[in-house]
Amino acid sequence: MNNTDALKNIRIVLARPSHPGNIGATARAMKTMGLRDLWLVAPRHFPHADAVVRAAGADDILDAARVVDSVSDALAGCVLAVAATARHREMRHDLFDARGAAREAVAAAGAPVAILFGNETAGLTADEAANCRIWAHIPAEAGFSSLNLAAAVQVFVYELRMACAGAAPLPAPEFAPATIDQVEKLYAHFEARMTASGFYNPANPGRLELRLRRLLARARLEAEEVNILRGFLTTLERPKRR
Amino acid sequence: MNNTDALKNIRIVLARPSHPGNIGATARAMKTMGLRDLWLVAPRHFPHADAVVRAAGADDILDAARVVDSVSDALAGCVLAVAATARHREMRHDLFDARGAAREAVAAAGAPVAILFGNETAGLTADEAANCRIWAHIPAEAGFSSLNLAAAVQVFVYELRMACAGAAPLPAPEFAPATIDQVEKLYAHFEARMTASGFYNPANPGRLELRLRRLLARARLEAEEVNILRGFLTTLERPKRR
Repeated sequence: MNNTDALKNIRIVLARPSHPGNIGATARAMKTMGLRDLWLVAPRHFPHADAVVRAAGADDILDAARVVDSVSDALAGCVLAVAATARHREMRHDLFDARGAAREAVAAAGAPVAILFGNETAGLTADEAANCRIWAHIPAEAGFSSLNLAAAVQVFVYELRMACAGAAPLPAPEFAPATIDQVEKLYAHFEARMTASGFYNPANPGRLELRLRRLLARARLEAEEVNILRGFLTTLERPKRR
Repeated sequence: MNNTDALKNIRIVLARPSHPGNIGATARAMKTMGLRDLWLVAPRHFPHADAVVRAAGADDILDAARVVDSVSDALAGCVLAVAATARHREMRHDLFDARGAAREAVAAAGAPVAILFGNETAGLTADEAANCRIWAHIPAEAGFSSLNLAAAVQVFVYELRMACAGAAPLPAPEFAPATIDQVEKLYAHFEARMTASGFYNPANPGRLELRLRRLLARARLEAEEVNILRGFLTTLERPKRR
């Protein structure tokens, strides 16, 4: 139903990552969302045990990662590059939020597309970002807008997957819904027991009937749930066990 | 333009987190998106230096975090609880993806709302999830669908913030919604009366408890409706009128 093939053409590029844990967490985030192509520009430490731990089973993404010397090398062959940046820069490119950028990326992903993330502390240089047509930011709180690198990757790859989906269909309900007449019989059963117990006085109904009918209508009861409640009400009709 | 006030009423609840690093990363994710209310149910290690490191400046969220013993304690006072779960369970509640659940949560956040996350390995227990009206999943790749805990929190809090943008303010509900703990007391009352009447045998519970909890969680009860049903149950405790 969903066409996630486009994700195979989208590479994630980390420029000069400092912490190998973030590389591993990036691999895990990518694999959960169906991306496979990781490029690392001059990583400080790689390979590294911390990367493997945080990858938590996405070792195949780490093993296949391409390590290159420059951002230009990592963008080679791409038809679109998106720079993930929280920075407000003087010379703006096309600005999108992550959701809009993901739609652009998926739309272009008949050919290779790159999403480029900067270093944890320094971000992207002006030169690195200059090569990207789209600059994309994750909407965030003013004054504390800096996501962890792997968390930012997670949001982007999640949005990439969502952009592929024509709203994934939910599975059909497993249990049969109650019919209107089953609910009506349940209401009548409640009323009878409420009257017998003295809780409800049909001569002075107030709003109880309306409220109870409204509750039962709103609850979207299943047939089995009606049976359970009516079974309980039925036991109330028997003499009490002492 | 955006009204992010609703985010102040949304608490993030981590049930039995194993890794303090995930607690810190959760605090950071929350703060970047404008959430502040973190609840920890029986964390294995907290406070912990790893939490502070990964919080990366969100120490104020950690300092203000509430530590409680049970999920019920953490949901007390909430009018809506959302269970974040990748699990495919037999007995389903209302199923949403993270985006749809975030919209529901923001719409309800005139009063406290909780988003509940399970342990890194074990997830949520059936009992913990049963009290949540909405079950929400993050769409992911079949066969590798398990996001890191803090990454899952990041996606949800990001979607909560996105849901605030352009969300038309809803009219105030006409009737006050029941809180989670009011519903819990209603459940206990039902169980007591079902047991006394002989309908329910606690020694041989079957699936009755789970089914009834699920029904009550899904019904979006109002406080007044809880009072009506408990009033009825109370009359059953009196000697029958002949």
